[in-house]
Amino acid sequence: MMKNAVVLLSGGLDSATVLAMARAQGFICYALSVDYGQRHHAELAAAQRVAQVLEAREHRVVKIDLTGFGGSALTDNNIAVPQQPSEGIPVTYVPARNTIMLSLALAWAEVLQARDIFIGVNAVDYSGYPDCRPEYIGAFERMANLATRDAVEGHPLAIHAPLLHLSKAEIIRHGNALGVDYAQTVSCYQADDQGRACGLCDSCRLRSAGFASAGADDPTRYRAKPDSR
Amino acid sequence: MMKNAVVLLSGGLDSATVLAMARAQGFICYALSVDYGQRHHAELAAAQRVAQVLEAREHRVVKIDLTGFGGSALTDNNIAVPQQPSEGIPVTYVPARNTIMLSLALAWAEVLQARDIFIGVNAVDYSGYPDCRPEYIGAFERMANLATRDAVEGHPLAIHAPLLHLSKAEIIRHGNALGVDYAQTVSCYQADDQGRACGLCDSCRLRSAGFASAGADDPTRYRAKPDSR
Repeated sequence: MMKNAVVLLSGGLDSATVLAMARAQGFICYALSVDYGQRHHAELAAAQRVAQVLEAREHRVVKIDLTGFGGSALTDNNIAVPQQPSEGIPVTYVPARNTIMLSLALAWAEVLQARDIFIGVNAVDYSGYPDCRPEYIGAFERMANLATRDAVEGHPLAIHAPLLHLSKAEIIRHGNALGVDYAQTVSCYQADDQGRACGLCDSCRLRSAGFASAGADDPTRYRAKPDSR
Repeated sequence: MMKNAVVLLSGGLDSATVLAMARAQGFICYALSVDYGQRHHAELAAAQRVAQVLEAREHRVVKIDLTGFGGSALTDNNIAVPQQPSEGIPVTYVPARNTIMLSLALAWAEVLQARDIFIGVNAVDYSGYPDCRPEYIGAFERMANLATRDAVEGHPLAIHAPLLHLSKAEIIRHGNALGVDYAQTVSCYQADDQGRACGLCDSCRLRSAGFASAGADDPTRYRAKPDSR
């Protein structure tokens, strides 16, 4: 019997690759996007396209308004998205974002009786974001296994982070091998309504450098060409 | 210097008591209510009154729509709220509810640089709800300490569940000693628009029995008198 999995899908390059991986492993995929008040709705439109193309059984968008908390350039209009690479934890960090997204995935997994949750955190991210580190993912999994009805009844739940130790270039190679159409994805922190990338933010730089390093064509539609290539 | 704390406040008896306890311990309290699509908006109106009376510095309501996931009588209109006590995990259980609420508290705590989060789970609940058990609270705390910017910088975060081992009667005695006005609170799963309790659901029964067992006056406004007194 095929098993259900919940796959967190932002509409970016990483989570699209994860959805393709979960599908290739034979899971029936339920794609979950979280609209946490981010500036770039183009990302959610991308998530919808990607879920359809990669044949997710369902795609749900949960809206949750984190703008009231502030504290991040992605949800607080008073903090500018940086145009240059920065050191330490970037201001684009959203407080407790992965914890909130994994919690919502856990809720849906419980209803679906899915025992597998996929998230696209990776090595490039965890240099700056505390909730992208392997020890964090392990601690969330242990907590989740004490939190749910299924856990009480002895059915353990697994949090899969298959990109955890991959570089951007390796992620792109995996995705290309699985036929992911990266032109459908949007990574930019400030994409325009048509989903065109700024070519200037950290996310654009990482993505562009990833295609270059993978020796792969970059199908991203840019408003301005990134200078990191 | 007084320290900030985030206090999860549902508007019910338990969380009002917790807010009074946190305040008595000298914390500046930021009250957080989560509107997760529950049927009883009277509870949120109660939360607002309680936050004001118990002098929370701020009260925020985060709206998050869990009705799309279904699976609980509190968020799924196709499942009836039971009128009789039931065995095992009740259908009023909301999937991953405490995990989602604690995750939102974690996000706000991070922005406020608060290192203390209070939640009103208690022994009476954890007979049926997996995410009300002490081992769950401990696992969430460990996860939270790997998730945040503050944790990375060496400032540990504590999850306080001061009601964990208290009976309903003990909770009420604590609250009365701290001057909590329980007439302001709403526990009922199906309170009407005026905040009057049904007197029939599990939550009404527990609450009514608690006042009786504490030998305290029950200020709850009922539409029908509970038969468990």
